[in-house]
Amino acid sequence: MAAPSPACPRRLLPLSLGLFQGALLLFFALFITYDESSALAEDANLVANQLYSIFPLFQDIQVMLVVGLGLLLTFLPRYGLSALTHNFLLLNFSTQWALVLQSLLHHFHHGQAHLDLRNLLTAEFAAVTVLISVGAILGRTSPCQLLVVAACEVPIYLASEWAIVTHLGVLDVGGTITIHVFSCYFGLGVSKALFGAARQPVHPRETPTHRSDLMSLVGTLILWVFWPSFVAVLCQPGDAQRRAILNTLLAMSASAVTTVVASSLLERDGKLSPSHLQNGSLAGGVAIGAVADMAVPPVAALALGSLSAVACVLGFRFLTPLLARKLTLQDQCGIHNLHGLPGILGATASVMAILVASEDTSGSRFSHVQALCQAAGLAVAISSSLLTGLLAGAALRLPCLARPPDRLCFDDLLYFKIQDQAENPGPGGTAEEGALALKERV
Amino acid sequence: MAAPSPACPRRLLPLSLGLFQGALLLFFALFITYDESSALAEDANLVANQLYSIFPLFQDIQVMLVVGLGLLLTFLPRYGLSALTHNFLLLNFSTQWALVLQSLLHHFHHGQAHLDLRNLLTAEFAAVTVLISVGAILGRTSPCQLLVVAACEVPIYLASEWAIVTHLGVLDVGGTITIHVFSCYFGLGVSKALFGAARQPVHPRETPTHRSDLMSLVGTLILWVFWPSFVAVLCQPGDAQRRAILNTLLAMSASAVTTVVASSLLERDGKLSPSHLQNGSLAGGVAIGAVADMAVPPVAALALGSLSAVACVLGFRFLTPLLARKLTLQDQCGIHNLHGLPGILGATASVMAILVASEDTSGSRFSHVQALCQAAGLAVAISSSLLTGLLAGAALRLPCLARPPDRLCFDDLLYFKIQDQAENPGPGGTAEEGALALKERV
Amino acid sequence: MAAPSPACPRRLLPLSLGLFQGALLLFFALFITYDESSALAEDANLVANQLYSIFPLFQDIQVMLVVGLGLLLTFLPRYGLSALTHNFLLLNFSTQWALVLQSLLHHFHHGQAHLDLRNLLTAEFAAVTVLISVGAILGRTSPCQLLVVAACEVPIYLASEWAIVTHLGVLDVGGTITIHVFSCYFGLGVSKALFGAARQPVHPRETPTHRSDLMSLVGTLILWVFWPSFVAVLCQPGDAQRRAILNTLLAMSASAVTTVVASSLLERDGKLSPSHLQNGSLAGGVAIGAVADMAVPPVAALALGSLSAVACVLGFRFLTPLLARKLTLQDQCGIHNLHGLPGILGATASVMAILVASEDTSGSRFSHVQALCQAAGLAVAISSSLLTGLLAGAALRLPCLARPPDRLCFDDLLYFKIQDQAENPGPGGTAEEGALALKERV
Repeated sequence: MAAPSPACPRRLLPLSLGLFQGALLLFFALFITYDESSALAEDANLVANQLYSIFPLFQDIQVMLVVGLGLLLTFLPRYGLSALTHNFLLLNFSTQWALVLQSLLHHFHHGQAHLDLRNLLTAEFAAVTVLISVGAILGRTSPCQLLVVAACEVPIYLASEWAIVTHLGVLDVGGTITIHVFSCYFGLGVSKALFGAARQPVHPRETPTHRSDLMSLVGTLILWVFWPSFVAVLCQPGDAQRRAILNTLLAMSASAVTTVVASSLLERDGKLSPSHLQNGSLAGGVAIGAVADMAVPPVAALALGSLSAVACVLGFRFLTPLLARKLTLQDQCGIHNLHGLPGILGATASVMAILVASEDTSGSRFSHVQALCQAAGLAVAISSSLLTGLLAGAALRLPCLARPPDRLCFDDLLYFKIQDQAENPGPGGTAEEGALALKERV
Repeated sequence: MAAPSPACPRRLLPLSLGLFQGALLLFFALFITYDESSALAEDANLVANQLYSIFPLFQDIQVMLVVGLGLLLTFLPRYGLSALTHNFLLLNFSTQWALVLQSLLHHFHHGQAHLDLRNLLTAEFAAVTVLISVGAILGRTSPCQLLVVAACEVPIYLASEWAIVTHLGVLDVGGTITIHVFSCYFGLGVSKALFGAARQPVHPRETPTHRSDLMSLVGTLILWVFWPSFVAVLCQPGDAQRRAILNTLLAMSASAVTTVVASSLLERDGKLSPSHLQNGSLAGGVAIGAVADMAVPPVAALALGSLSAVACVLGFRFLTPLLARKLTLQDQCGIHNLHGLPGILGATASVMAILVASEDTSGSRFSHVQALCQAAGLAVAISSSLLTGLLAGAALRLPCLARPPDRLCFDDLLYFKIQDQAENPGPGGTAEEGALALKERV
Repeated sequence: MAAPSPACPRRLLPLSLGLFQGALLLFFALFITYDESSALAEDANLVANQLYSIFPLFQDIQVMLVVGLGLLLTFLPRYGLSALTHNFLLLNFSTQWALVLQSLLHHFHHGQAHLDLRNLLTAEFAAVTVLISVGAILGRTSPCQLLVVAACEVPIYLASEWAIVTHLGVLDVGGTITIHVFSCYFGLGVSKALFGAARQPVHPRETPTHRSDLMSLVGTLILWVFWPSFVAVLCQPGDAQRRAILNTLLAMSASAVTTVVASSLLERDGKLSPSHLQNGSLAGGVAIGAVADMAVPPVAALALGSLSAVACVLGFRFLTPLLARKLTLQDQCGIHNLHGLPGILGATASVMAILVASEDTSGSRFSHVQALCQAAGLAVAISSSLLTGLLAGAALRLPCLARPPDRLCFDDLLYFKIQDQAENPGPGGTAEEGALALKERV
């Protein structure tokens, strides 16, 4: 592993970020305006109503991404500040970057780009893929590396989303395929290429404590509560949106109960594993996205929620250790269990829902094509993300990106000026060691 | 006390929950559909507007129940994961169970049952009663016992709510009588029958720490903020709903200030008790429910909020110890102080509000009958819940439900696989004792 | 420093608060009613729609003030309960006090005062100024002193807001000048007059710990998410409100990224300072308030967000220590950096925005006057608040207000009955010392 050159990488992050902010200002000055409606009273009413219909859901999603997801990642007991901050930074950086790319594309096709809440939202969805992907490499990477992941993933997501939704016409209102499956395999690709065949030893600071598990569970609960807003925000208003909300509520509820069942059955003494709860309760929300607004019966949502929770818990218990052993695949947060497996289940469910619906109605020819498209979309999402993820991961091995040495992984002290050092020597580390590590880093 | 047979009860929870989920799927497949409006554009608008009017309030309530109430219960320092998880599990299980029962009733009267947000909400209100009741026995009961409480309480609540609201015509938009008073006395009944005349010794893990008090206070603040949504969500849109929101805001504000006054005056050195704050600040919200949408003047809401906060604080200081001494009544969270006393105050306030209103208008005959109904509703709620609670509590004594031995109460280690055991020996317990307890449990 | 007389000040807080609650009840009984619309169906619809348009934003703001701001203040590790509680108490007391004053003024002009959500909101804005101001003296003051600050600041704010907005016609939809600048200099005035030329020694309990920094950062994130609601809630519905939301979102996003850049560049080893993050991320929201609803291009919002984050971080790094050294000015939370500097920047931006807009349109004469008014408003806000703040601070030196002795500052034990004393001897304090301090206080 490259020894971090002490001065340069410390400056690389702020300088590159600062440069990006400067370029962003220039770009906005040249290309972006607000969409101004005319000043008619009727229009004002319309604008206001549009705003009131989207803004509460938008705020819910912001809470999910900033607070809920951030807290979920604080299960690493000495890495809470970094997890919250990197999540927050990546969200903002990736959203800005996605806005730039979206507007550029739009600009070349239609001239001046207008900014509104809907644009911001689709840019934020691009950012979500980054936040999910970096879960695979959480704690073992520097902020510079995370920014590189974001810089790579956002344009690839936009291309893949265009291919899947616009070109193939895949139905995926909640982003099951385009967001969850895509970001999962992108993240796994990055992890594989970054860590290679070297097995990462278990670090003492990796083990959650009672307190960090509690914080993380609060994050899960926040995500659980607001998930329906995430799935339904871009739905057609009316019945479709209402269905999307109800289906998501049912799937989440089934996930929550089934997770307890599955986790408890898997352990010899019937205890629950906090990580199962933290992830399994959300699996239904991931899976339901592709069928949420379709005219499926309520029972389908419940069944999908239950199944995906089972898949998630089984994944944590058996698949993650297996992948780590056979493929030396590192998946810190278990994104394959929360986003990969339920995402594939959800995509499969959308195929089946379309086929079943076709038997009831006349347009069966059209439906078969649509079902095929869903399957093709899933294949495109997995293959493109894995491939590009591997490439992006290779780029992360550049020595200038300052991947932290194992000894200093999972430690807020590496990135934060914490005054009360005494509290934070890390488990198993004496104050002397801490002082040493500190001296080395300065 | 029955020694828990090591294998059976460990499997009882997941097996019975799993069976329930299976039955739920079957039931949904047979009986439940979504209500589909016609595809007219006008209707779509109507559906969308209905959605936008109820959904933000619905989300507020979800935050209250999942995050706010969950955090409020984490005042037990070693029991945070269990408190959050059991609260979350009970909410989902009870809501599903209430949906089944509601739909069955509806099915036999009107055929096919439709699912919409309003149904879900009333089912969730049934679940709230369970969440409140189990506060009396928090930490000394197994998850199996909690599920039995939920299984019993939900149908009894539905019957009692029907008797009080539909049959007697009691006005109670915020659930003061039907939810708070009912669930309080049900929980006390369960506690009395479960623990009998045996005085529960004070457990060292029962004492809140500075940190757990802080987390719990955050839960209170979340509940405090969103309480108006809980009271107003099922109100008639328009003036009544606006009044309900404003009245609740005023009552909550008065409660917050008065709690500080009362708590500070009661202690010799003028210090505040965290548990007074955690509960007293919410007492106004409990009490205002029965009169929130009535045409009472703002001063009434303020006065009711202040009075109920005083009652709550006095209850904690004098009544709870008294009941524990005289009746050996165990009330872990003090639900009698937060839900019982303010609930009775609120019901009394509704009687007075109706009588006062009758003097102003002509329909005094009708008003006297209504006032009588309110009082009768309160009597029905208290008596039916106490009686059925005692019966349910007796059922909890079944040895197969695996009530945890005193030594292991209030401890997350009993239900969770916590990797970092070192952090969790429990106050007063040496590492040796912890190892012993652990060995015994495996 | 006056030795606190043991009995009197302990009773002063509850007695004065209780008296205030009594007076409030009387006042409400005499003067306040709800605004009742007629019972026409059309009106009911209108009332409902007004409610749905303001209520979600209102709840967002409640979350900000009660939960977000409360958590932000928990960076003092042994003072979390006090910070949350005093913030909560001051919010409620000040809102009630502002309601009384507003209604009195209204009553003398127009007769009976009606209460609605909009009134409550403007009263809450008055309370916000108190919550900000007391940040300068957090932890070194008694609750009695904080109440005196609130009692003084609310009427002065109302007068200053009237002078600035109604009389001068200053445009300031998000309260940049009227709320943030005003409350900042009021708080600094109080601090200066209270502590005088005596340099406050650094207290060991002042140093944030890893855990308290994490809690505080969660508070920041909650404030960050909901800030757009705070800025936009009182905007004209339609384009102006939409612009206000989008501008705030852009400014907040730029602030978040720029804070990381600035904080990282300022430290020799490139580490981030938690306090920079906790405050800098919000600076854009403070600054954008005065121009949020103006027709500025999106790039202006971004630039203002970045600039104010830089100002905030530089303020923490250089200005606060300088002011402490040269003027012996105590600013515990750094309110000058989060509210003062960005507020002045925002006011300046509003002047420039008006001048630039005037060059595009014909009404340049009018615009120059308006620009002058903005500058005058800023001057009024600073000078009036500093002056009155100094006077209020002098009042806080009354011995009966029981300012805690230095030894007992920043300690929840002084105000809360915490049962688990063992956990709380304070860093650097032995158990013996704790017992001593305790004995002294009883």
